[in-house]
Amino acid sequence: MKIVLIGSTGHTNYVVNGLKDNYEDQIVGIAPGSEGENVDSLYQKLAKDYELEKYNDYRKMLDDLKPDVAAVACHFGDHAEAAVEVLNRNIDLFVEKPIATTLSKLAEVKKAYTNSKSKLASMFGIRYKPWFLTAYKYIKEGAIGEVRLMNAQKSYRLGQRAEFYKKRESYGGTIPWVGSHAIDWMQWLSGKDFKSVYASHSTKANQNHGELEVSALCHFNFEDEVFGSVNIDYLRPQNATSHDDDRIRIAGDKGVIEVIKEKVYLINDEIEGSRELPLVANKEIFADFLDWAKGQGECLISAEESFRVTEAALQARESADQKQLIQF
Amino acid sequence: MKIVLIGSTGHTNYVVNGLKDNYEDQIVGIAPGSEGENVDSLYQKLAKDYELEKYNDYRKMLDDLKPDVAAVACHFGDHAEAAVEVLNRNIDLFVEKPIATTLSKLAEVKKAYTNSKSKLASMFGIRYKPWFLTAYKYIKEGAIGEVRLMNAQKSYRLGQRAEFYKKRESYGGTIPWVGSHAIDWMQWLSGKDFKSVYASHSTKANQNHGELEVSALCHFNFEDEVFGSVNIDYLRPQNATSHDDDRIRIAGDKGVIEVIKEKVYLINDEIEGSRELPLVANKEIFADFLDWAKGQGECLISAEESFRVTEAALQARESADQKQLIQF
Repeated sequence: MKIVLIGSTGHTNYVVNGLKDNYEDQIVGIAPGSEGENVDSLYQKLAKDYELEKYNDYRKMLDDLKPDVAAVACHFGDHAEAAVEVLNRNIDLFVEKPIATTLSKLAEVKKAYTNSKSKLASMFGIRYKPWFLTAYKYIKEGAIGEVRLMNAQKSYRLGQRAEFYKKRESYGGTIPWVGSHAIDWMQWLSGKDFKSVYASHSTKANQNHGELEVSALCHFNFEDEVFGSVNIDYLRPQNATSHDDDRIRIAGDKGVIEVIKEKVYLINDEIEGSRELPLVANKEIFADFLDWAKGQGECLISAEESFRVTEAALQARESADQKQLIQF
Repeated sequence: MKIVLIGSTGHTNYVVNGLKDNYEDQIVGIAPGSEGENVDSLYQKLAKDYELEKYNDYRKMLDDLKPDVAAVACHFGDHAEAAVEVLNRNIDLFVEKPIATTLSKLAEVKKAYTNSKSKLASMFGIRYKPWFLTAYKYIKEGAIGEVRLMNAQKSYRLGQRAEFYKKRESYGGTIPWVGSHAIDWMQWLSGKDFKSVYASHSTKANQNHGELEVSALCHFNFEDEVFGSVNIDYLRPQNATSHDDDRIRIAGDKGVIEVIKEKVYLINDEIEGSRELPLVANKEIFADFLDWAKGQGECLISAEESFRVTEAALQARESADQKQLIQF
């Protein structure tokens, strides 16, 4: 398959890692997806392994190279526009989250998707980490019974972020950018759909990062009186042992499962005390997507889930902006 | 000092433990605080160490014995009525949380308190656990800077609860009964006052416990755009290593502190990685209260905090009942 990259800002490493030891599929082109985005360094890195062309205009690249798959990962506020261009050409789309940074742009992408023959998945790559895959496996096997209550965490180091992070228009907000992973875990692991959200966010203590929110809290209600919180922050000290501190705890009517510090713990009535679960193997999100694009099995992330989580994240941000409860 | 007990339902062990190795202050009486409450077993236990009288009517006990201090710990729906009787007699009051199970009853207790000379503290005894005292000490010393985001957890085993837990009228609800501890930690550890709350709760999976809510989630907004969540459940499996799994994580602008599994961890820019903090000594809540009652220093829990946390818990329950955001 012929693959192109639009942008070099988000998780383009998913594409590179997903093609490791794959000599069949080729990256054939790269172009910026946003004004002022410089893709030179990724281009030079890829040029060692691929015969690829660099374009200034991604539309021209799509028309010239007629790729099978496009990966979009530019400034977050421009994901939607690039996505629509890809979908309008019936090219399969692997798109950084959030798919769009406004609900109206999201509606445009959805419409383009509905009218296209493309496959689509958003880059919820943390699902593929062994600890999350392990939690998923045990929950699906019934280890905690029916899910009742979920609490997820995203905590990052802030460091010094690029300029586009400092404007809502280009960045999209911390709930969509950082939080949408955790919002995705909750939908995916519980199998429950969103009903409402109440959220809060604050730019205080953001160390001169303009409009970037450094703390946020979301309260989702799901079907069947299932509740889920997400706490999000960029307050993790630079001295911490890792960039992130991803967590989720899920209490069901038959047990409690927890992902913390890259491990998974289960307590239920069959287990004395708490048991650390053996981890299933890592998977590569882009390899999974490519298999799907080739008609070999399903991708773990569906287009419907990708859209729904994006919507949920944008509604949460809206709730935080308006300080109001929002019904889905 | 002469001490009496009204009820034997809640944490009367606080009183007993707080008097250990204290040969000066005496428990002189005990009476039920609720219809159908049986205090015989506690009476017999106490009779080994104290010359105390058992009454059927706590009002008569208060009038006959004229105690200095009354501890109220009956069915939760009856705390307020007993509290008012104690306060009207200018007796110092050590009262189980929640002080009241409705806002109107809370107002009655507040009024009686304002008109009395009594000292008052509510039984937020978990504050006195070494791990919480340690977190408090480090936060006050500036280890995490300004508090920005808090996430607290209360998780209990359900087991088989007494009948009065199964009715809102006598039980008061899971947010006030279980959750108020965590609501108290947030106010105490951050020093910030409540601004609004959105909460949810559910009786699903309550194993025939009537109106008892088994899962709950609260989202508080505090002053200065500080946010705090509390997740509450009775979903902890019977096989778990402890009855409860109390936690709090607090992210500040200079570090993150966490209480989990009776330990305290700190990360900040002075510490490489995560550091387990040395624990300060345990304290006894009732001993602290008695010292205060005797005019020897302040109690760690003020009357104002006791009332404010009760109000916050009742507003959270109201929010969950009404499915609406509530401003304080």
